[in-house]
Amino acid sequence: MRLARLGPAGAERPVVLDGERVLDLGGVTADIDGTFFEQGGVDTVRLALEAGDLPELPAADDLRVGSPVARPSAVVCIGMNYGAHAAESGAQPPEMPIIFLKTPNTVAGPQDPVTIPPGSVKTDWEVELGVVIGRRASYLSSREESLDHVAGFVLCNDLSERHHQIEVSGGQWGKGKSSPGFCPTGPWLATPDEVDHRALRLRSWVNGEPRQDSSTADMVFDVEHLIWDLSQYLALEPGDLVLTGTPQGVALSGRFPYLSAGDVVELEIDGLGRQRQEMRSAVGS
Amino acid sequence: MRLARLGPAGAERPVVLDGERVLDLGGVTADIDGTFFEQGGVDTVRLALEAGDLPELPAADDLRVGSPVARPSAVVCIGMNYGAHAAESGAQPPEMPIIFLKTPNTVAGPQDPVTIPPGSVKTDWEVELGVVIGRRASYLSSREESLDHVAGFVLCNDLSERHHQIEVSGGQWGKGKSSPGFCPTGPWLATPDEVDHRALRLRSWVNGEPRQDSSTADMVFDVEHLIWDLSQYLALEPGDLVLTGTPQGVALSGRFPYLSAGDVVELEIDGLGRQRQEMRSAVGS
Repeated sequence: MRLARLGPAGAERPVVLDGERVLDLGGVTADIDGTFFEQGGVDTVRLALEAGDLPELPAADDLRVGSPVARPSAVVCIGMNYGAHAAESGAQPPEMPIIFLKTPNTVAGPQDPVTIPPGSVKTDWEVELGVVIGRRASYLSSREESLDHVAGFVLCNDLSERHHQIEVSGGQWGKGKSSPGFCPTGPWLATPDEVDHRALRLRSWVNGEPRQDSSTADMVFDVEHLIWDLSQYLALEPGDLVLTGTPQGVALSGRFPYLSAGDVVELEIDGLGRQRQEMRSAVGS
Repeated sequence: MRLARLGPAGAERPVVLDGERVLDLGGVTADIDGTFFEQGGVDTVRLALEAGDLPELPAADDLRVGSPVARPSAVVCIGMNYGAHAAESGAQPPEMPIIFLKTPNTVAGPQDPVTIPPGSVKTDWEVELGVVIGRRASYLSSREESLDHVAGFVLCNDLSERHHQIEVSGGQWGKGKSSPGFCPTGPWLATPDEVDHRALRLRSWVNGEPRQDSSTADMVFDVEHLIWDLSQYLALEPGDLVLTGTPQGVALSGRFPYLSAGDVVELEIDGLGRQRQEMRSAVGS
């Protein structure tokens, strides 16, 4: 099942995608968020879908695509989780997952333009598999329990300002990860039965030229390991977003230029759709 | 003016403290949160207080004290912001503010017991001045604008698990900062007219023995600088919490033992009240 949220930012309407049809969930839930997942919303939608109870949303093609999950309580990110990306960043693959956070207000729609922070000369892209939490996860006993706490998967761009992240941060990466709009998410959330999260091709392009092209099979720590491990250090809440790290092929490698106003970033993960963001200058900067 | 939230966790009632009297704000606002600040709630409460319109809350003394601000969208922390604490941690004072985040679900009441994470042997205390954001702050032009975006000040304990933070983190501190209950906040929020945030004595004790004893005048970067600086890297939302760093006197220094079950941590900041937390073992660990 594929869930999405369509409409103006802050007023998105929940929908389920049924082939080419867009079905309105406004009669089933106010939003797709932590409360929705906590209260078994996915099962409710599945039953309504099977019963044929859901109306089509008129003029869905004309609507903006929002993040398929409303603002999470936390956006938890994993660093250096692909060996070749660690190498291009000048680091060894980590022995344990490296955790950092983005502020939840970075979450944006997958086609929303991205404002390059004023003065930035090192804005970079990162295609990532995002995991949406369905049930609170705290001190899980084993990695076998992890998927019981997962509502689904999404495509994310973990945008990063490398000067902020590395050169003026005192080493704490979060400083370059939370500029407004720095977490385009979507276009849809796919429930776990829709995709094989262990082997998804993930790719990115800038102005049509290929940049990243890898598989989630190349992760240093897989999704099951990450959710179990994270739960030892923090409590994941329903609706939270876990970004599982990016593969090689970013500008930080030195092989490609950083982003400038007018550039177009595109990202895709098998079964999770495609994003397209135009980079814009900050007004007056 | 001093605002607080009293009652069971998740069902706190907003109040204003008027000398020894506790006045119910249930008729004025549903909660003390981002929406409350954004919609001018502080001014509304002030008018109602002056008009004598607010009823006393019965049996207030019997109620649990919650965090005076409901779950923020972000808890933003500043590292190494007192020179003597940087030194005891083996570091130089930073040239620019160091930013890291705690997950917002760490926020707890000031007297709530704290569960030591299972297996932890390095749980540490950090008394800190917390700043509550009243108005969205993004790309402020100067430090002179900062206080216009501040709703008030609170006492916080930035609890930290140093093994998680330093030894198994790959250098990203957040891993040791977000265990459940790791951000006791309160007992009350004082509006800026109530305290001189530039020179507040802040202290902590463990089992009655003094640990930290400094003044916010010793900060490397003051509140005005921090809010302006932070706003260049992320957007602070109404109701967000900024923890401004801790002074010397924590266990990480090697001068004091880390916390064990049964230990009692107390913290105080002039004009912002006092906290008391009993440390507990995780069940079954």
